[in-house]
Amino acid sequence: MSKTDAEVPAEVSRIARRVWIHTLEATDAETDQYLDAALRDRSSATQAALDAFLRPHAIAVVGASADPNTIAGLLFGNLVDSHFGGVVLPVNKKHPTVQGIAAYPDLVSCPVVPDLVIVCVPASAVPGVVAQAGALGVKAVCVISAGFAETGADGAALQASLVQEAQARGVRLVGPNCTGVLSGTADARFNATFSRAVPPPGRTSLLSQSGAIGLAVLEAAEIRCLGIGGFVSVGNSSDVASNDLLLYWGQDPAIDLILLYLEEIQDPRWFIRIARWVGRRVPIVAVKAGRTEAGRRAAASHTAALSGGDVAVDALLHQAGVIRAESIEDMLDLATMLSSQRRFRGRRVAILTNGGGPGILAADACETNGLVVPELTELTMGRLRSLLPPEASASNPVDMIASATAQQYGQAVRVLGAAPEIDALIVMFNTPLITRSCDVATELIAARAELSRDVPLVTVFMNREGPPPALREAGIPSFAFPENAARALGRSIAWEDRRGRRAGRVLRPDVDAHRIGPLVAAAGRRASDGWLTAVDAQALLDQYGIAVARAVCVRTPGEAEAAQSELGCTVAVKVAAAIHKSDVGGLRLGVTTPAAAAEAVLAIRADLESAGLSGAATEFLVQEQIESGQEMIVGVNRDPLLGSLVMVGLGGTLVELLGDVAVRIAPLTDCDIEDMLQSLKSYRLLTGYRGAPALDVDALRQMLHRVSALVDDLPEIAEMDLNPVFVLQKGAVAADVRIRFADHPSSP
Amino acid sequence: MSKTDAEVPAEVSRIARRVWIHTLEATDAETDQYLDAALRDRSSATQAALDAFLRPHAIAVVGASADPNTIAGLLFGNLVDSHFGGVVLPVNKKHPTVQGIAAYPDLVSCPVVPDLVIVCVPASAVPGVVAQAGALGVKAVCVISAGFAETGADGAALQASLVQEAQARGVRLVGPNCTGVLSGTADARFNATFSRAVPPPGRTSLLSQSGAIGLAVLEAAEIRCLGIGGFVSVGNSSDVASNDLLLYWGQDPAIDLILLYLEEIQDPRWFIRIARWVGRRVPIVAVKAGRTEAGRRAAASHTAALSGGDVAVDALLHQAGVIRAESIEDMLDLATMLSSQRRFRGRRVAILTNGGGPGILAADACETNGLVVPELTELTMGRLRSLLPPEASASNPVDMIASATAQQYGQAVRVLGAAPEIDALIVMFNTPLITRSCDVATELIAARAELSRDVPLVTVFMNREGPPPALREAGIPSFAFPENAARALGRSIAWEDRRGRRAGRVLRPDVDAHRIGPLVAAAGRRASDGWLTAVDAQALLDQYGIAVARAVCVRTPGEAEAAQSELGCTVAVKVAAAIHKSDVGGLRLGVTTPAAAAEAVLAIRADLESAGLSGAATEFLVQEQIESGQEMIVGVNRDPLLGSLVMVGLGGTLVELLGDVAVRIAPLTDCDIEDMLQSLKSYRLLTGYRGAPALDVDALRQMLHRVSALVDDLPEIAEMDLNPVFVLQKGAVAADVRIRFADHPSSP
Repeated sequence: MSKTDAEVPAEVSRIARRVWIHTLEATDAETDQYLDAALRDRSSATQAALDAFLRPHAIAVVGASADPNTIAGLLFGNLVDSHFGGVVLPVNKKHPTVQGIAAYPDLVSCPVVPDLVIVCVPASAVPGVVAQAGALGVKAVCVISAGFAETGADGAALQASLVQEAQARGVRLVGPNCTGVLSGTADARFNATFSRAVPPPGRTSLLSQSGAIGLAVLEAAEIRCLGIGGFVSVGNSSDVASNDLLLYWGQDPAIDLILLYLEEIQDPRWFIRIARWVGRRVPIVAVKAGRTEAGRRAAASHTAALSGGDVAVDALLHQAGVIRAESIEDMLDLATMLSSQRRFRGRRVAILTNGGGPGILAADACETNGLVVPELTELTMGRLRSLLPPEASASNPVDMIASATAQQYGQAVRVLGAAPEIDALIVMFNTPLITRSCDVATELIAARAELSRDVPLVTVFMNREGPPPALREAGIPSFAFPENAARALGRSIAWEDRRGRRAGRVLRPDVDAHRIGPLVAAAGRRASDGWLTAVDAQALLDQYGIAVARAVCVRTPGEAEAAQSELGCTVAVKVAAAIHKSDVGGLRLGVTTPAAAAEAVLAIRADLESAGLSGAATEFLVQEQIESGQEMIVGVNRDPLLGSLVMVGLGGTLVELLGDVAVRIAPLTDCDIEDMLQSLKSYRLLTGYRGAPALDVDALRQMLHRVSALVDDLPEIAEMDLNPVFVLQKGAVAADVRIRFADHPSSP
Repeated sequence: MSKTDAEVPAEVSRIARRVWIHTLEATDAETDQYLDAALRDRSSATQAALDAFLRPHAIAVVGASADPNTIAGLLFGNLVDSHFGGVVLPVNKKHPTVQGIAAYPDLVSCPVVPDLVIVCVPASAVPGVVAQAGALGVKAVCVISAGFAETGADGAALQASLVQEAQARGVRLVGPNCTGVLSGTADARFNATFSRAVPPPGRTSLLSQSGAIGLAVLEAAEIRCLGIGGFVSVGNSSDVASNDLLLYWGQDPAIDLILLYLEEIQDPRWFIRIARWVGRRVPIVAVKAGRTEAGRRAAASHTAALSGGDVAVDALLHQAGVIRAESIEDMLDLATMLSSQRRFRGRRVAILTNGGGPGILAADACETNGLVVPELTELTMGRLRSLLPPEASASNPVDMIASATAQQYGQAVRVLGAAPEIDALIVMFNTPLITRSCDVATELIAARAELSRDVPLVTVFMNREGPPPALREAGIPSFAFPENAARALGRSIAWEDRRGRRAGRVLRPDVDAHRIGPLVAAAGRRASDGWLTAVDAQALLDQYGIAVARAVCVRTPGEAEAAQSELGCTVAVKVAAAIHKSDVGGLRLGVTTPAAAAEAVLAIRADLESAGLSGAATEFLVQEQIESGQEMIVGVNRDPLLGSLVMVGLGGTLVELLGDVAVRIAPLTDCDIEDMLQSLKSYRLLTGYRGAPALDVDALRQMLHRVSALVDDLPEIAEMDLNPVFVLQKGAVAADVRIRFADHPSSP
């Protein structure tokens, strides 16, 4: 739960309290300025706190062990071996030395006060250590020990007391139940984890909510020569959590890329804002586990993480500008690509290969991933032909055939890298016969150094030996299969495209906050099973300027007659209750006379009774029938963890079957809304499809802004359906409305 | 082009000639019998021919070289090293010994006549070698040499003369432009390729249309301990091609799994039948390259392969029961899985892990791939709890936590393997701390041997060392990431499910073949730009019993008046020409009087003229307007290589936007049709959606059978649209029909 949200009192301010992020009529520049300032404040506080974890001068390990077959022994050994520039202080009650280093019986006895204390003692002893550290003025404690919230109620209580102790003494905590902290930047290098792998230092940082995944990624990073500048295993995230580290690394000039393994997204509103802000400078790649029901069950039993529905998570990550990796391997591929070059400017790829089949697979993989494999100009092909034997193919993919030499690779890369029709190169070296991989690597490294332009060079070594280490050490990304290369390249370019776009802004309708409060309270009292009456629902929408077809609520055939005359147009007569009307005979369309309206009420009553729904047959709506325009749907569902999801899509009875919908988390910016509409297959139905007149898409946009404001103001709205919404040549009108309040409104 | 098709004379027999595969009113059993017999005949001929390639007794290598840095030297060295049980005969004009073995100056001088001759001499010398081999009675020649059809017109001519020479002498050819042949069965073991990798012998066979891909797969097979029983690089497929090898391996008791890398599908009608037949015994996994436009361009320049459109290829592989791999890595994963166990019975998976995060990812991956991660019974959980520490989680995924020992792995596998609620196990071993991978492997091998039931056991070793070799040698599949394991397992189970189903049969309408010929000829003469007149199109559909809304063709307002009276119902008036009527004002609906019909003709004329289409404004249809039912579309497109594609989907103007369609290659079986309909999101609109009456789906099925017969009989149909087709409560009627003949009808 966001601290900011919690600080603000309830009632009317429910609406006012969110205005601070809406910035009302602010311009884009003003919005950016406002957020910049807010985030910069938060960032400098975070930096002071996290420097102690990631750039300490003295590290104490409480519980440091001489036995390398224990976690505490392994971790301490790693720390000693990591050539930490500061002081390492083993703390051990029983032994005067640990792994050959003089040890201290407790923190108080240490010759200097450590900046960072790593705790490896049994759970029950941890609060004592934290208290001692706090008393000495230590600001950063990383608790490796397990046995806290992940084990059940007793553990959760122990963790709560630990956090309380830490807060009381101004100590920040990483963990408990974690694998430690590692730094590999130029100004701070140490390994206080129990990983057996030693990834090279570098400019990529990693946060993991799972110890095992963290260790697996560090091992893979070592194999891939992926330089790691920072790693924090947040364990149970009792204090320091993903948003803190995003902010820290996002402002750290030593870090160029942030990798996240998440099981839950804590404080999602801040996550979106921080990630957007950080993402302007560095790419963020996240694996979010718990995509499926089975995965969420598993996550709940792992770290008691509560994972939102995956549609909501997907929307959130998209809105936050985070690149969502499909798997750990996908994350590693993206990291290999994104850490290797600074720019991904265009989609036109040249493929260079020594085998035809692999070239075809690479071309397929490029096009599948949104890349283009263009024809080369005559000039480029001529230059290639002068290098290659006549049997080679100088068209793209350029197939130098199996006899290709290392020198030919180097020369062809120079030609293609200089070709203005090409933005990026994928170079494949398949099973070598005579030419050696390492010679090709040498030539590629030399050729790349000479390339005058900023052209990504990506390699695929589809053979037993895999990519030569020299290549990876030189920062040229290499993959085992062309699909991985093309996929990572395509997504990196897509990220660069998106980064250039503005974040957009939230537009709010003028709403009289003082009228909303009482209206909501009264509507809630009159609601049945949470469902608002038709009249209350319509009144609420009115306040937000959301157009609903004119309607009169009636109880008798006589009232229906009068209502039809009053409206004076073709009407629909329907049951007022929020049920699936058309499935149970609760709807009559095309009613043109007062008498027919009365008859319709009687007929609906009869149908509902035979459907066993006579309880619903008390109130009816006589409503203006919209007879033109395109049927769309606008809906809202509240994810208990991530907030209100706003959905727009093709409406009518087809909506469930065809699923042509787009979803984002409220509040929506104008860019979100544009993005949603453009992603719909049915969008073209709105813009003048096959000679039909163009419809008022702008009215639909406005409706989405207003719905977003409504559900963002009123977290008690658990569910809302405007289906259908008719988008007309002028305006957009909801013809049917259902709103449900949750029993216990809560903000995310 | 199918030889069978080419053997039959033209004209009326165009229809008769395909009857042999339709087997008219045959029962399923009769169809199966018929195909069985036909395929068995072809299979025994193939077997005799291919035994010489894959089970030879004496192999000569013409052009065998002493230099291991040449292809000929590498290949000959491999052959010598492969402990071939028969005789190896190097043939070299200049040297009396090659790599220490006595050589012969030519084939005639060899002491025995080889069964198999491998040719590594320059292209121009190859026809002479084949002639000499043929004269000696050699039946099998594998041409490694390049410089044939892949290089252009001269090479194609040389290849044609080579094939002619071989056919004249009864010699079968593998290649040219290939990497050789390898066998690794119990009765035949040799390596006549220039691969540097030596995969273990085994029961998986591989065919590759690309040398480089073939070599890459052999290398990967060695690393994965995937046993290879047979490998043929078909190169330019001048003679022996994929269908031959499918048949051969499909009947080879030494082979359990067939892998294909294809750039084109030769003789697609036979491919479907052979693959279906073979697929009853062994799984076939194919990578088909050239999925995209860029890939097809690359394929055309590689081996001059002509690849059909990917939608057609996808339909074909689906109908053939072939598992389509997305990539080489996907094929290797599937091979790892399918080669490891004989049965994949059910979808309920237990996950066993020593890390929580990896367990969540595995659960996600299972559910994403159609697998189920069920709750365990109390009994099973109780047994697990008795083995594991209290901090472990006994629910599925079972998280034994980082302290899990090898023994605990073994014990937990025994418990889960015996649990009746579980069909398969995924066992993950993440970064080891104290427990060693090899000990876990030993315990898993032992536990698996004791499992009484046939439960697939799949492992994931997500750590730096990767899976212990012992595990792979024991035939327990192992993957680096849970996603790969779950995906391969899910697809293997899906394949097993599909294998159980019947192939289905082709139902044909009674058609008077003698009337069709003249009708087609006359319609073709009257067609404009290939488009049939409305009257001819309707007449053709009539012959096949495909219902079209009643219509009268008129030229004047007066004729339209008369036509409306004659039809005596609400009519549509529309331009007869095969254009997109509704886009240009060529359609008037809801015409209820003779006078209105006349007016409609005038109005359409005016609209067409203002759209610049006055040429089309000469003939009009006055047609019964269908006012109920669901609009669907039935369409046909002819792929020049793979045949006629029949499409069915949601109709009306939404079809292009929503793309809810299913496609198969004609002729369609009843199973194909069922499969297509069930795959549509809109299918539920036909079966009584939300209280609507159920529609006559069977009439739509019949229409698809009839359309399939029509386009299968008449390959001149390049394109056909029945859009919309109204599926009614009784019957199904096409309301608009367009048929286009190709200029030069050809059969695939």
